[in-house]
Amino acid sequence: QDLVSVADYQRYAQKHLPKSVFEYITGGGADEITLQRNRLAFQQWSILPRVLRDITDATTATNLCGQAFRHPILLAPVAFHQLVHPDGELATAEAASLLDTGMVVSTLSSQSLESVAQKLESPRWFQLYMQQNRDFTLQLVRRAEAAGYQALMVTIDAPLHGVRNRAQRAGFQLPAEIEAVNLRDRPPLPRAEFTPDQSVIFQGMMSEAPTWRDIEWLRTQTKLPIILKGILHSDDLRIALNVGVEGAVISNHGGRTLDQLPTALEMLPELRASLNKADFTLLVDGGIERGTDIFTALALGADAVMIGRPQLYALGVAGKLGIAHLLRTLRDELEITMALAGCSSIEQIDAQYLRKQF
Amino acid sequence: QDLVSVADYQRYAQKHLPKSVFEYITGGGADEITLQRNRLAFQQWSILPRVLRDITDATTATNLCGQAFRHPILLAPVAFHQLVHPDGELATAEAASLLDTGMVVSTLSSQSLESVAQKLESPRWFQLYMQQNRDFTLQLVRRAEAAGYQALMVTIDAPLHGVRNRAQRAGFQLPAEIEAVNLRDRPPLPRAEFTPDQSVIFQGMMSEAPTWRDIEWLRTQTKLPIILKGILHSDDLRIALNVGVEGAVISNHGGRTLDQLPTALEMLPELRASLNKADFTLLVDGGIERGTDIFTALALGADAVMIGRPQLYALGVAGKLGIAHLLRTLRDELEITMALAGCSSIEQIDAQYLRKQF
Amino acid sequence: QDLVSVADYQRYAQKHLPKSVFEYITGGGADEITLQRNRLAFQQWSILPRVLRDITDATTATNLCGQAFRHPILLAPVAFHQLVHPDGELATAEAASLLDTGMVVSTLSSQSLESVAQKLESPRWFQLYMQQNRDFTLQLVRRAEAAGYQALMVTIDAPLHGVRNRAQRAGFQLPAEIEAVNLRDRPPLPRAEFTPDQSVIFQGMMSEAPTWRDIEWLRTQTKLPIILKGILHSDDLRIALNVGVEGAVISNHGGRTLDQLPTALEMLPELRASLNKADFTLLVDGGIERGTDIFTALALGADAVMIGRPQLYALGVAGKLGIAHLLRTLRDELEITMALAGCSSIEQIDAQYLRKQF
Amino acid sequence: QDLVSVADYQRYAQKHLPKSVFEYITGGGADEITLQRNRLAFQQWSILPRVLRDITDATTATNLCGQAFRHPILLAPVAFHQLVHPDGELATAEAASLLDTGMVVSTLSSQSLESVAQKLESPRWFQLYMQQNRDFTLQLVRRAEAAGYQALMVTIDAPLHGVRNRAQRAGFQLPAEIEAVNLRDRPPLPRAEFTPDQSVIFQGMMSEAPTWRDIEWLRTQTKLPIILKGILHSDDLRIALNVGVEGAVISNHGGRTLDQLPTALEMLPELRASLNKADFTLLVDGGIERGTDIFTALALGADAVMIGRPQLYALGVAGKLGIAHLLRTLRDELEITMALAGCSSIEQIDAQYLRKQF
Ligand SMILES: Cc1cc2nc3c(=O)[nH]c(=O)nc-3n(C[C@H](O)[C@H](O)[C@H](O)COP(=O)(O)O)c2cc1C
Ligand SMILES: Cc1cc2nc3c(=O)[nH]c(=O)nc-3n(C[C@H](O)[C@H](O)[C@H](O)COP(=O)(O)O)c2cc1C
Ligand SMILES: Cc1cc2nc3c(=O)[nH]c(=O)nc-3n(C[C@H](O)[C@H](O)[C@H](O)COP(=O)(O)O)c2cc1C
Ligand SMILES: Cc1cc2nc3c(=O)[nH]c(=O)nc-3n(C[C@H](O)[C@H](O)[C@H](O)COP(=O)(O)O)c2cc1C
Repeated sequence: QDLVSVADYQRYAQKHLPKSVFEYITGGGADEITLQRNRLAFQQWSILPRVLRDITDATTATNLCGQAFRHPILLAPVAFHQLVHPDGELATAEAASLLDTGMVVSTLSSQSLESVAQKLESPRWFQLYMQQNRDFTLQLVRRAEAAGYQALMVTIDAPLHGVRNRAQRAGFQLPAEIEAVNLRDRPPLPRAEFTPDQSVIFQGMMSEAPTWRDIEWLRTQTKLPIILKGILHSDDLRIALNVGVEGAVISNHGGRTLDQLPTALEMLPELRASLNKADFTLLVDGGIERGTDIFTALALGADAVMIGRPQLYALGVAGKLGIAHLLRTLRDELEITMALAGCSSIEQIDAQYLRKQF
Repeated sequence: QDLVSVADYQRYAQKHLPKSVFEYITGGGADEITLQRNRLAFQQWSILPRVLRDITDATTATNLCGQAFRHPILLAPVAFHQLVHPDGELATAEAASLLDTGMVVSTLSSQSLESVAQKLESPRWFQLYMQQNRDFTLQLVRRAEAAGYQALMVTIDAPLHGVRNRAQRAGFQLPAEIEAVNLRDRPPLPRAEFTPDQSVIFQGMMSEAPTWRDIEWLRTQTKLPIILKGILHSDDLRIALNVGVEGAVISNHGGRTLDQLPTALEMLPELRASLNKADFTLLVDGGIERGTDIFTALALGADAVMIGRPQLYALGVAGKLGIAHLLRTLRDELEITMALAGCSSIEQIDAQYLRKQF
Repeated sequence: QDLVSVADYQRYAQKHLPKSVFEYITGGGADEITLQRNRLAFQQWSILPRVLRDITDATTATNLCGQAFRHPILLAPVAFHQLVHPDGELATAEAASLLDTGMVVSTLSSQSLESVAQKLESPRWFQLYMQQNRDFTLQLVRRAEAAGYQALMVTIDAPLHGVRNRAQRAGFQLPAEIEAVNLRDRPPLPRAEFTPDQSVIFQGMMSEAPTWRDIEWLRTQTKLPIILKGILHSDDLRIALNVGVEGAVISNHGGRTLDQLPTALEMLPELRASLNKADFTLLVDGGIERGTDIFTALALGADAVMIGRPQLYALGVAGKLGIAHLLRTLRDELEITMALAGCSSIEQIDAQYLRKQF
Repeated sequence: QDLVSVADYQRYAQKHLPKSVFEYITGGGADEITLQRNRLAFQQWSILPRVLRDITDATTATNLCGQAFRHPILLAPVAFHQLVHPDGELATAEAASLLDTGMVVSTLSSQSLESVAQKLESPRWFQLYMQQNRDFTLQLVRRAEAAGYQALMVTIDAPLHGVRNRAQRAGFQLPAEIEAVNLRDRPPLPRAEFTPDQSVIFQGMMSEAPTWRDIEWLRTQTKLPIILKGILHSDDLRIALNVGVEGAVISNHGGRTLDQLPTALEMLPELRASLNKADFTLLVDGGIERGTDIFTALALGADAVMIGRPQLYALGVAGKLGIAHLLRTLRDELEITMALAGCSSIEQIDAQYLRKQF
């Protein structure tokens, strides 16, 4: 069997999925420089191992926003799982439950947030795209609370689609039978009119984008921990801390929005340092495919990592079993890395285990 | 449709244009090291974005040499547009007008500077190749003034053709029906004779090249702003400032003259700094293909950028509509970059938004 | 004849050996980043030569753990030579004897350690994998002593197999007729049971792994010099020194265990320095294929080097003669390097002969 | 015509010459890392040009060891020109004369040093391989003096052939009809016998290699300027200065001897600086293919450059005319580089015209 790593699932997915769907998932913004650097970022670091230690009491258990996780690998919010498999998010949720893996369900799930929650026995978080209509945003929050989601991950780095040339060239379009079911009741937007001097982008699309004011407002509306997804600048991280949210995902959205963004991994040490040991949860995502990648991210200051595209590859190739196998592989690789590096716990993993590559 | 970026136009042009013409346009000097580095220079930088800002009042409007521009993207002077399309510079001018884009018309245009000016409703500048005969140079300047051009861009980095091996290998020759119409009345040059110790290059061709004295003379002859095109050394920039010209294009002529020249982008910060905040307009060109490239150049100190080859690709592939679409794409990409980086105006774009890549 | 370098043997082996066997031998862990870097590490350095020196009295003779070696190139411990040739370790031993080359026989040899010792006239060392059962470990040590092995090389960096994706994808399995004959009498391990919260890796496999306590114990059981194979961290090297062993192999196990490990070569200067001139033998292995590689390793502080995979390539391609030719080639290349660098002895080779590459 | 650069001649030579001959010429030592770096070394530097200068009085004329040269490009000593063309060194000499180019004739020329001298009207130097028999060495020197050679270039970096794997793999052998005619009268070497402990390399081949004593002796035997070819270490350069020779070629012998040697270009600044402005001629060779390469070498401290392999490519492809065209091309490219960089003389070319590449 030659399906033994995350990259293998990508290879298989390329064969099994319709080309336009595969291109849409795999692709990044513009020239995909950021996308490629997301992988290269991990190769900037070597893991410097310790030998002959007793690690028979080792564990990957950890704690995020006060909640217990069996291991620090989460499924990132990813829209429309039914694009690759009719079982969609429900299958993903079942596999996550099997492997005790936290799952972040997207606002743009192809199955309702309530139905996914029902299948999910492992930690469940809801990813929120804030809506122009605050009432409708609040309605989504209340549904998530009611369905038992334990945190809100608010994505703030994608007010625009970016320049998705690869998906455009492949002619990708959302199939008619797939829908953002959670947004069915969304009130229609007022039609915009522009003067010749105005820009469809600045005065059009960006007028729907959330600002810090909206985050402050949301903070007052729910007791759930809030994690902002898509911060790369330490000044923004400090604002987030002041606004009272519990955490952030350092992310460039998988290289899918603006090309030429820095990688989450390269920003991580600086961002962690800027927190001055404040109690604040930092996740990272982007390009994570190996146990060694997870170890590296944790060593540089992340509390946990999220996995995006590989979910869809595994789901597309082998449904629920695919995702379960994928998560098993990642967990095993993380444990092997810890064992061979001589590390017994997630807290113990720090920069002393790393060394800059030549 | 898979024509969604500047690079796509190049791909299409390679299919549509005669090989020798395509090679002539695309090619650079010698081993094309500078040409390649022109693209790579932009990948030395990442864009560090700010999130959750309100940018609904954003604009790309700017000011160059006291003249208003809707956006900081200009069409670089490029010879002989009819090489790729019978509509030539007239088509380019119409497209530029549609997109409110400044155009710099070359001395070597294949249609007369007067006829191009008539089609041009957006800012129009004239690129001047100084002639050995000062009277004839002056005649060109007077025609440009009369036709309403608002600035003179004097190209100083190409007194020789350089080593254009790629065009040579492809056997490129200017087709008989295409002509430097603006130079029709040029007085014939005296035939040169060399002693055995003399060089055709030093004592021959270079005897026609302009020097600082010619620039000083030109300065006394016209009230139009003068912009010197092709400066890379800060000492030359200081001389330019003293000579009283209004601006400069930092440029290696698209990598077409001397190979191994530095890129404009890498010299830009040093050159901007050497100006000590003097009021002097700096443009850059070379390898600009993306909104993120434009943003990077502005952040490093440019007031505006120019686009060379892509004009000819778009014109060759789809005529006037091609250029219009190309300009639309670049403007949109710049706006998307500003929106996702959290920048509301051209002046706001500075080095704080950049980070050196690993 | 186009078999003139180590790389040529690899090329030929790829043709001659069954694919799964070749992949098993050649492959490294996970994405083989460490494997590739093992080769690249040598290209970080140039050799700065001295000219016009008299070196007619030069020699490669050297001394390791008080034992005389004709040259500082050893055959690394490599399991199961019969995988590539029916003559197995016996043939390797005969070739080593012919070329006065030290050989380190693996615990996992496919022919008994006693039979190999009988063919071996050059320096012979035994590589020990410590067994969970101390009595059985001691039995192996006593057999090695009895057979005349002059040192124990204890491998400590491979308590787990690591993520051998390449071998897995090629479906490699040990053929039925090949066996770890030295371990025939190994007492069966107790069957492990795990609670749902336990990990097969941490609580299972790693419970068999040796720790520093086991090394301390071993030190009390034998008078043979002990060399720990697989140290990369200077803190571990200092512990080794304190525990009283005689030497260490700086090694990442040929890139076969954890991917993203640093290379032995890059760690070498730091590790040598950390010894503060203590009398301690340092070997390195990983990616050594050329006389210049050996010279570089010695110049950076190694006392000798070991060669892993190339043994199996040469044995597989041409049996005993292959190995003899391989060793001849490496010795000649080392001598040529010394001659052209102006170096007369192994001790003379130091960092003054090196220069960082641009 | 697509023969417009040095690289074009290589391409054509690959088609026209027998494979084993082409491989012998083109190839370098071992893995050809040094060979590749010889080219890459030039790409570490950019040329920073000055504009609008008057250079109508420019010239490439220069002075080496007190002798006048029309330009600083010499033909490096290269053995056996008849390998590629029956007209051999005579044709090369005629072409060199046509282009006023200095030629260094090899001890291993396939036509007698006297016959070559007769065709050579431009500066002529003789490359000397010192022979084990001092009388015979002296005989070569006297013949060179008699034939009008004006300097001796003593090659000291190739006492051994090195590891020429590429030529070996191609099965290269000197054809029967080609001979080192200058060495016809060489007295036979005594047959060597080795003890088992001795090395064919150290005690055999290297016993014929010259040492500093031989250079001291040679210095007393001739009034011709002596230039040592193949120095890379500044300590050796200082010895050379003390021994009283007039110059040195910084060279790694075109990457043909020891692989992993540094490039001449990277050592040049350090070696020039180590001379403390002493009057000493420094040449460099290795990988020079462009006018910009020559300019870079001069700017870093060389007095002139030598061209090796390209001679044979041009001679093989088009005989005397090929070499003449090659030299014309290189001279033109150098003049174009000077013109576009704003440099009027060879002395003016210095490090201020260079900039490290990103
Ligand atoms: C097909 C696809 C859909 C995505 N949908 C969402 C989404 O709905 N909400 C969100 O916050 N992020 C979304 N993301 C971004 C991911 O959450 C994550 O940041 C990114 O995929 C991580 O990079 P990786 O794919 O390299 O692991 C999506 C990513 C992909 C590839
Ligand atoms: C085919 C072609 C013709 C050009 N003609 C001129 C010209 O007539 N005058 C001039 O100043 N620059 C000329 N240029 C240089 C451009 O103005 C500009 O500096 C260069 O193309 C910018 O690089 P880019 O092509 O990578 O955008 C020409 C460039 C090309 C490719
Ligand atoms: C097929 C194979 C089997 C190996 N078996 C052993 C072994 O039994 N014991 C051990 O200590 N190392 C073993 N090694 C590791 C080698 O001793 C050595 O560290 C490594 O091969 C050096 O790298 P190189 O192959 O690049 O020279 C093995 C390596 C290979 C390739
Ligand atoms: C085929 C060949 C033969 C050579 N023969 C000699 C020689 O006889 N004497 C010598 O000093 N150098 C010899 N060289 C080295 C050249 O003088 C010179 O150092 C080298 O070729 C410069 O590098 P390039 O080939 O990259 O220009 C030879 C080089 C080649 C390629």
